Amino acid sequence: MQNLEEKTLSEKTWFDGRVVKLVTAEVELPNGEKSSREIVKHPGAVAVIPLLETGEIILVEQFRKPLEKTIVEIPAGKMEPNEAKEITARRELEEETGYSCGDLEYLTSFYTAPGFSDELLHIYLARDLMKMKKPLAQDEDEFINLLSVSLEEAKQLIAEQVIYDAKTMYAIQFLELNKLKNEILDD
Amino acid sequence: MQNLEEKTLSEKTWFDGRVVKLVTAEVELPNGEKSSREIVKHPGAVAVIPLLETGEIILVEQFRKPLEKTIVEIPAGKMEPNEAKEITARRELEEETGYSCGDLEYLTSFYTAPGFSDELLHIYLARDLMKMKKPLAQDEDEFINLLSVSLEEAKQLIAEQVIYDAKTMYAIQFLELNKLKNEILDD
Repeated sequence: MQNLEEKTLSEKTWFDGRVVKLVTAEVELPNGEKSSREIVKHPGAVAVIPLLETGEIILVEQFRKPLEKTIVEIPAGKMEPNEAKEITARRELEEETGYSCGDLEYLTSFYTAPGFSDELLHIYLARDLMKMKKPLAQDEDEFINLLSVSLEEAKQLIAEQVIYDAKTMYAIQFLELNKLKNEILDD
Repeated sequence: MQNLEEKTLSEKTWFDGRVVKLVTAEVELPNGEKSSREIVKHPGAVAVIPLLETGEIILVEQFRKPLEKTIVEIPAGKMEPNEAKEITARRELEEETGYSCGDLEYLTSFYTAPGFSDELLHIYLARDLMKMKKPLAQDEDEFINLLSVSLEEAKQLIAEQVIYDAKTMYAIQFLELNKLKNEILDD
């Protein structure tokens, strides 16, 4: 198969913020022609599926300025420099929900938008949840409502476009798939 | 529950490119304090799961400059201005794979990275695939290798981090879930 690599000829930074950095790269294409690529650099993020013993999951309602609307998501947050992803997972779970967890299982990772960004998102399943008496404080510019929903309720929220983002819809599908697999194994 | 809305006080555009636009917004938080948000505006995109009668799916291998690596994805592309999403779906399928499709079923939509971008991705399932004699030309800066894989092979590619992005992993999980459901119904 043909080699698809694009060599960087030059780079220019247009914006370097708290969350993202925007860079354009002049590249040499596999056929020797030139083109330019727009790249949004991101430190990476971790999301957690907080699963209660009842089978319900804890979700966070949050205003997302890019969408100009409030949606409901699994807890998540961006990684701090040099932070191990399991540490980010435990920190974000506690900051956003007020719960800590005993069991934290790594599930998978994926790039959220590989066409223009290097954001890599890691997903964990958290069980043995414990309500903290004094949880870590939320970020001072972060405002959140908490809710607990069953798998059926979560699927209804997807139908209503209240749950509307990739990581949360992946997580709900993951739970549905695993419920079905376990039910098959249980028989 | 508390109102979480953030009112825009002012906006500044830092970059306005072919694919994305980067804007910062000064906002008033629900408690009256001020903060700033970084927003990557994107025209939206459509992805297609091309399902052959054999049960295999057609995937595209592509170099993704933001990741500095080649990954394997379901065919996808960004929407053109005022383009209906079904038209984008048929166009991208044909440009990237050389197949047209009879049956095109809308599955779902999600925001890929709501923390910093408004990119909304729509996903379709394409069946009745027909190899075109004269397919639409690929974009001139787009270089692609094609492959057809079974569901089991796709899951192996996920394990190897060759399939590594949200939409494709969602699509594979969707197929797995539906295969399991149908098998249950078949019994």
